[in-house]
Amino acid sequence: MLKGRHLIEPRDFSLEELDQIFSLSEEIIKDQQAYLDVCKGKLLASLFYEPSTRTRFSFEAAMLRLGGQVIGFSEANSSSVSKGESIGDTIKTVGCYADIAVMRHPKEGAPLLASKKSYIPVINAGDGGHQHPTQTLTDLLTIKILKKDLSNHTIGLCGDLKFGRTVHSLVKAMKRYLNINFVFISPEELQIPDYIKDELEENQYYETASLDEVIDKLDILYMTRVQKERFFNEEDYLRLKDSYILTNDKLSAAKEDLIIMHPLPRVNEISVEVDEDPRAVYFQQAKFGMFVRMALIMKLLGVDKNA
Amino acid sequence: MLKGRHLIEPRDFSLEELDQIFSLSEEIIKDQQAYLDVCKGKLLASLFYEPSTRTRFSFEAAMLRLGGQVIGFSEANSSSVSKGESIGDTIKTVGCYADIAVMRHPKEGAPLLASKKSYIPVINAGDGGHQHPTQTLTDLLTIKILKKDLSNHTIGLCGDLKFGRTVHSLVKAMKRYLNINFVFISPEELQIPDYIKDELEENQYYETASLDEVIDKLDILYMTRVQKERFFNEEDYLRLKDSYILTNDKLSAAKEDLIIMHPLPRVNEISVEVDEDPRAVYFQQAKFGMFVRMALIMKLLGVDKNA
Amino acid sequence: MLKGRHLIEPRDFSLEELDQIFSLSEEIIKDQQAYLDVCKGKLLASLFYEPSTRTRFSFEAAMLRLGGQVIGFSEANSSSVSKGESIGDTIKTVGCYADIAVMRHPKEGAPLLASKKSYIPVINAGDGGHQHPTQTLTDLLTIKILKKDLSNHTIGLCGDLKFGRTVHSLVKAMKRYLNINFVFISPEELQIPDYIKDELEENQYYETASLDEVIDKLDILYMTRVQKERFFNEEDYLRLKDSYILTNDKLSAAKEDLIIMHPLPRVNEISVEVDEDPRAVYFQQAKFGMFVRMALIMKLLGVDKNA
Repeated sequence: MLKGRHLIEPRDFSLEELDQIFSLSEEIIKDQQAYLDVCKGKLLASLFYEPSTRTRFSFEAAMLRLGGQVIGFSEANSSSVSKGESIGDTIKTVGCYADIAVMRHPKEGAPLLASKKSYIPVINAGDGGHQHPTQTLTDLLTIKILKKDLSNHTIGLCGDLKFGRTVHSLVKAMKRYLNINFVFISPEELQIPDYIKDELEENQYYETASLDEVIDKLDILYMTRVQKERFFNEEDYLRLKDSYILTNDKLSAAKEDLIIMHPLPRVNEISVEVDEDPRAVYFQQAKFGMFVRMALIMKLLGVDKNA
Repeated sequence: MLKGRHLIEPRDFSLEELDQIFSLSEEIIKDQQAYLDVCKGKLLASLFYEPSTRTRFSFEAAMLRLGGQVIGFSEANSSSVSKGESIGDTIKTVGCYADIAVMRHPKEGAPLLASKKSYIPVINAGDGGHQHPTQTLTDLLTIKILKKDLSNHTIGLCGDLKFGRTVHSLVKAMKRYLNINFVFISPEELQIPDYIKDELEENQYYETASLDEVIDKLDILYMTRVQKERFFNEEDYLRLKDSYILTNDKLSAAKEDLIIMHPLPRVNEISVEVDEDPRAVYFQQAKFGMFVRMALIMKLLGVDKNA
Repeated sequence: MLKGRHLIEPRDFSLEELDQIFSLSEEIIKDQQAYLDVCKGKLLASLFYEPSTRTRFSFEAAMLRLGGQVIGFSEANSSSVSKGESIGDTIKTVGCYADIAVMRHPKEGAPLLASKKSYIPVINAGDGGHQHPTQTLTDLLTIKILKKDLSNHTIGLCGDLKFGRTVHSLVKAMKRYLNINFVFISPEELQIPDYIKDELEENQYYETASLDEVIDKLDILYMTRVQKERFFNEEDYLRLKDSYILTNDKLSAAKEDLIIMHPLPRVNEISVEVDEDPRAVYFQQAKFGMFVRMALIMKLLGVDKNA
């Protein structure tokens, strides 16, 4: 039963609960008109303590497309939100006005803390470098729909595997499915942390610094951005950011049914020419992100098409 | 007739008009579903020239829960609102787009000025340290619902009584009802101003520096925050902010049917342990604030459940 | 066919297409109730990379009054929108969530660039000093409704004719109609540029520095603000900003059926006393701006009252 629950980290939900969310997502995609009013009279509080336009848009569009409404802020300056108030008091007050809350916060653990005091479901929309569970739901739904199944894939993850929270979450989420092989593609400085690898079987992953070496073996290629803000040093950033740029040329060796994913925004790690390739699915992925959030909101509110 | 009127200060409405608003609030609380569409096609302009997330959320939630819609800003920077425009021109232009406006402004008198030029009803959502009439409506509704009546109470007001606009308005509003006794509890530096006391009968109030002395006599205890921004001097603030902290221990002497109110946000003047006490009603109070704003908006727009 | 098209500059639409938009605007004005739900289930992305409260309100009110919904931002700070993302990627992502986008941008050409990559219609809501086509639509609709016809007028344009993008667009738009005479009224420093005059017949316009000289000949007087931000020099600004202030006294010589227009906001170029004169139509003009945007959104989305 998902009604009334919170989503703070990806593994808060069982595989079966995830399946319910994905099934509902697919039903919504098939017949959006049927869901135009399911959240009528419901209010989402969109609490973005740090700006993230893309994630905010995705959540707000999700709620509005279900016939619900939105209150919120897109950036917290000290004067507006708290005047020294605790996050527990804030979420309790928000719970007087809204039926469900989405929270993005620069501090790790803030959404968890809020959920413990909250009268209403809280969804973590990213807390520092920590968790971003609806990105993981988005990634899983994309794979489920476009590859028909969440099991039996070889997934390449390429770019910044050290700091990339999206990648860490996806690895943890995908290893719950059957027969998944991971290929970690990164420069030495940005390799995936040991604590992630420690959760995998030894023969379940392969590490390399060369995309060319492995591209023909992949079913899924998950590209990530090398974020400037992760570097202490301009020089290192400039040298590494261009290391793993996907081009049509590189793609010529890849499988015909490869899918190329990216959490967006991209800077230059995927050449614009690749956008025309039917294997490039990152904008579809963004759209699936909205649909999976629609399903998530419905489940946590416990509303239904025929209710 | 409230249709088309403005609400700039609490005493703009007669006791009878307040009663109409409170009655409608109670009807809405009983059957929210019946009001889901009463403001369909109506637009609220939410004009927050200074940030106040809590008040803004309350108004916007109120309008959206009536089926209306909202346009607005949550913080005015010089470039966005005016380019040198007068407040009269601004409200006239807003009146071309919206059906009703809520205005929060750092300058005393700005909402009054706007209302004089406006084509549409203007609600003052706080102007400097001056007025905040919908907080007063919230307080009155809370007392009316939880104490069954607005007459015949002993009300303790505790904390910053010198600068607290909320307290001043509540005293002025409550003294219109029968048999109300006020107990002013504050350190000497933060005593209630003479001009407020001058409006009361001499035997209608009692001043003390000790909460313990009077807590057993109170029907209502209204706690307030000691706001840092009111002090010139860090030292004075630090010394006084902790003077009047409500704890379970202090409460052991209080009446069983006491209600503890607070306009929120709280800093530390009510210990978190008190939240569990059934006499603590400040989060209910926040919720009543949304309902009274729903009723207010309906009355000023002249819309009705059966219209 | 306007469905799916973009509006980047005023002349993107033929005279016939403009006529369709104006006709629909007039129908909406006659019976707003009939349009309350025509955009139900549709989402407008309101992308204001620089603040413009008035224009944003007008678009958002337009969409909401059609039963549609809005996501957006009102000011882009570097962290929120892009993290280095191209405008093409941004508009493609927005197109995953929304059905139509409005873009205000400080850089000339940004909306055009966006439209070339977009999956959804893009409306330019102002790009630098360049274009602001919906202001021009507003001006044309105002003239069409209040003067019954877009042909056969003598139009005076007064104030800053050098930098005023609104004026340049209006001149270009009006010269497509029959028998239009332009009177350019400005100090020497702020005269209309040659490249605008070069598009007119020599006997189609007259230049003067004196409003008094020509006011009795005008059917339409379009006043503009002298914007401080256009000047390098405080002294020049102070001297010139008061040069052309419209007063009741000046107006005594004008025709009885003159209409006085202004794109707003006004500073002091029209004296407040003039607001009471029935010939002052600038606030009506603002309202027409909302209606013409309602019609525009409907046409670009291809929705209809009976659809």
